[in-house]
Amino acid sequence: MIKQIEIKLPSFNRGWHLITGHVTNELGKLPEKGLLQLFIHHTSAGLSINENADPSVRTDMESIMNHIVPEGLSFLTHTMEGPDDMPAHVKSSLVGASLTIPISNHRLKLGTWQGIYLCEFRNHGGSRRVTATVIG
Amino acid sequence: MIKQIEIKLPSFNRGWHLITGHVTNELGKLPEKGLLQLFIHHTSAGLSINENADPSVRTDMESIMNHIVPEGLSFLTHTMEGPDDMPAHVKSSLVGASLTIPISNHRLKLGTWQGIYLCEFRNHGGSRRVTATVIG
Amino acid sequence: MIKQIEIKLPSFNRGWHLITGHVTNELGKLPEKGLLQLFIHHTSAGLSINENADPSVRTDMESIMNHIVPEGLSFLTHTMEGPDDMPAHVKSSLVGASLTIPISNHRLKLGTWQGIYLCEFRNHGGSRRVTATVIG
Repeated sequence: MIKQIEIKLPSFNRGWHLITGHVTNELGKLPEKGLLQLFIHHTSAGLSINENADPSVRTDMESIMNHIVPEGLSFLTHTMEGPDDMPAHVKSSLVGASLTIPISNHRLKLGTWQGIYLCEFRNHGGSRRVTATVIG
Repeated sequence: MIKQIEIKLPSFNRGWHLITGHVTNELGKLPEKGLLQLFIHHTSAGLSINENADPSVRTDMESIMNHIVPEGLSFLTHTMEGPDDMPAHVKSSLVGASLTIPISNHRLKLGTWQGIYLCEFRNHGGSRRVTATVIG
Repeated sequence: MIKQIEIKLPSFNRGWHLITGHVTNELGKLPEKGLLQLFIHHTSAGLSINENADPSVRTDMESIMNHIVPEGLSFLTHTMEGPDDMPAHVKSSLVGASLTIPISNHRLKLGTWQGIYLCEFRNHGGSRRVTATVIG
């Protein structure tokens, strides 16, 4: 069984945002076991799994990623779309554009502290599209 | 055909550890062709594919990741669980919580020099749980 | 339906290279919906999704990755194969050895600006092998 839907996420501010509830609401009924694959159709955002409890993790993720991939590096040439653009592309390749999560007992089998994140790397990224593919 | 098992890994020290043999032993018989997906149920560890031969790669992976994501950055706020905690979350998002590996001729189709790594980013992470999903 | 083929990529210079056309040509006819998984059988190269339009993105990706994972770090011990080798292993774990992309309407469902990249992290990496697995 293969099921595919497209999820349109609302505009988020630059930063790391939990979207687990949003995704599971859109998915509806899941098979007894299988895999969910999520794929974001943009090159300056990403999807990740990380800690779902303490909001300070989300702000620190944003801060450390800006530390690792700073804006304004003197050697950059792709600068027409603003200083946040090229670092956003790099972060997208580092974090990744997709996730695959096991499905067990008709539910996403996430760890207790795991949530699904939209990582918005642009200052004004706008709405983001994600394709969800369920194999079961 | 979808098969799913949970693998309980022993406690590893902080660092990069080859677990290819451990995983293949737990999997048992594989289908003729397909995919294996591995998903770790923790947010301060990761799974990766890297060089399986020279132990110096493993120590250097740990050293470079500590260089890229240092402890003690002054702007961090998620510090209650110790200085190794927030960098561990970042490393987990950079390396990733899951792997997908092709299966061919009833075996994992890894390159000659490729092995499966558990990346333990905490000082005392304890035992780690991984779900293995085989599609064939 | 599971289909698996091996793709032999030509030698590329160190850097980020679009291979979307190469991959789709090799794949042939795709199922109506499903997933494509690509897996590179090497530990000093990677696969990524990023911007497919402006060549400056590709040169900046290479520059920033060299900034994040510089050569010649004094604490490295895996140095026998040259100064580009150990950073290449790190970049491979950061970017990842595999990609999964949804298939919809018999085509890869990539965003308008998304392309498939081979990331060649060695100075002289030679030809690279990729296994493509289609589930549909």
